[in-house]
Amino acid sequence: MSSHHIVRDDQEPALIIANGAACSVELMGQLLEWSPLVVVLDSAIERVVELGIKVDVLIGDFDRDFNVDIYREKQYPIDIIHIADQNSTDLEKAFNYLIDRGIPAANVIWATGKRADHTITNITNIAKYREKLKVTIYDDYSRIYTLPFEFKKWYEKDTIISLIPIGEVTDITTTNLLYPLTNESLILGERTGSSNSVLQDGLVTISYKQGYLLMMECHD
Amino acid sequence: MSSHHIVRDDQEPALIIANGAACSVELMGQLLEWSPLVVVLDSAIERVVELGIKVDVLIGDFDRDFNVDIYREKQYPIDIIHIADQNSTDLEKAFNYLIDRGIPAANVIWATGKRADHTITNITNIAKYREKLKVTIYDDYSRIYTLPFEFKKWYEKDTIISLIPIGEVTDITTTNLLYPLTNESLILGERTGSSNSVLQDGLVTISYKQGYLLMMECHD
Repeated sequence: MSSHHIVRDDQEPALIIANGAACSVELMGQLLEWSPLVVVLDSAIERVVELGIKVDVLIGDFDRDFNVDIYREKQYPIDIIHIADQNSTDLEKAFNYLIDRGIPAANVIWATGKRADHTITNITNIAKYREKLKVTIYDDYSRIYTLPFEFKKWYEKDTIISLIPIGEVTDITTTNLLYPLTNESLILGERTGSSNSVLQDGLVTISYKQGYLLMMECHD
Repeated sequence: MSSHHIVRDDQEPALIIANGAACSVELMGQLLEWSPLVVVLDSAIERVVELGIKVDVLIGDFDRDFNVDIYREKQYPIDIIHIADQNSTDLEKAFNYLIDRGIPAANVIWATGKRADHTITNITNIAKYREKLKVTIYDDYSRIYTLPFEFKKWYEKDTIISLIPIGEVTDITTTNLLYPLTNESLILGERTGSSNSVLQDGLVTISYKQGYLLMMECHD
């Protein structure tokens, strides 16, 4: 599973492995294949190493009682980055690290499942990085990313598309969706655009003016 | 597992079984024991019936291709309630049904996990029912409910408490938390109160003035 070391191109997304529920081995393998850099969050490394994956960077506050130093040898060469800041999550620490290195994009796995507070914080925290880092969260049922103000993509008819506002998002207009929006607002907890779907094979366009709108491409 | 039929007190919370990831049999058993009414959402009934659970109410838009009628005999007596409204989720349909019946509280399981759009929509949709229905979502790692504007509860030292705002919540003040808040705001996606913890055995108080603040009591 260390084939990611063949490709070393900082234009490809880094892969961040967070500390939630593990995804399928297939999904992980697909994402690893093209990742020039594998970043693991905190004690998740215990589970990652068991899968035989070579880790490039380990980031966290390491506030749990686990021995970081054993990975210095086991995973040599590895960058171990200890950041004690309690005002950012481990995932935000990893995003900031990638931005500092000039890496433009990150795929994230294991960011959902298990604790609901981590799940909702991880998903909603990607939004504020919209201009700085292209982040996509993957799990076995979902592909999640922040929409730019103008979005256009080809989809197959009946693809499920969920538009989830973080707080309030205004002036949303869509084309080629079963439940179209025309200069409308979505508000988390009140009115979201969950479980919309694509009308016919072709381009879907989505635009909005203010706030952060997440795209979730989900399937059962 | 049908011991819930012994107790028939509409003051006890109804149990809603949604359509996400199943929880442990232990958690389900504990919640069933005291539930006067078991409400199942849409095609989740296929998985619920397999567990030998007696269902009282089946609610959904039944837009999937599954045969509702076979449960009329299998689960007799059962109320089967078909609501086609596309503007509410199945979980909201169940909340509205309980409110109409005058039931004051609901515990919800299987509302998280699997599709991320369902998870985030289910969790955040409970907030707007704050004044009408006391809702608690449970999964194997989390207990989630909407905080009233003034909240007081006894906790053990080091209990993890996450305060998750839906959108923006203002003027939050806490006592007996490791990271205290004093007339501060939390904003989803920017600054949340995830992974706070209790300073010492005793009462924790939380107050806020505007918005919806979720409590998540989570553990690994």
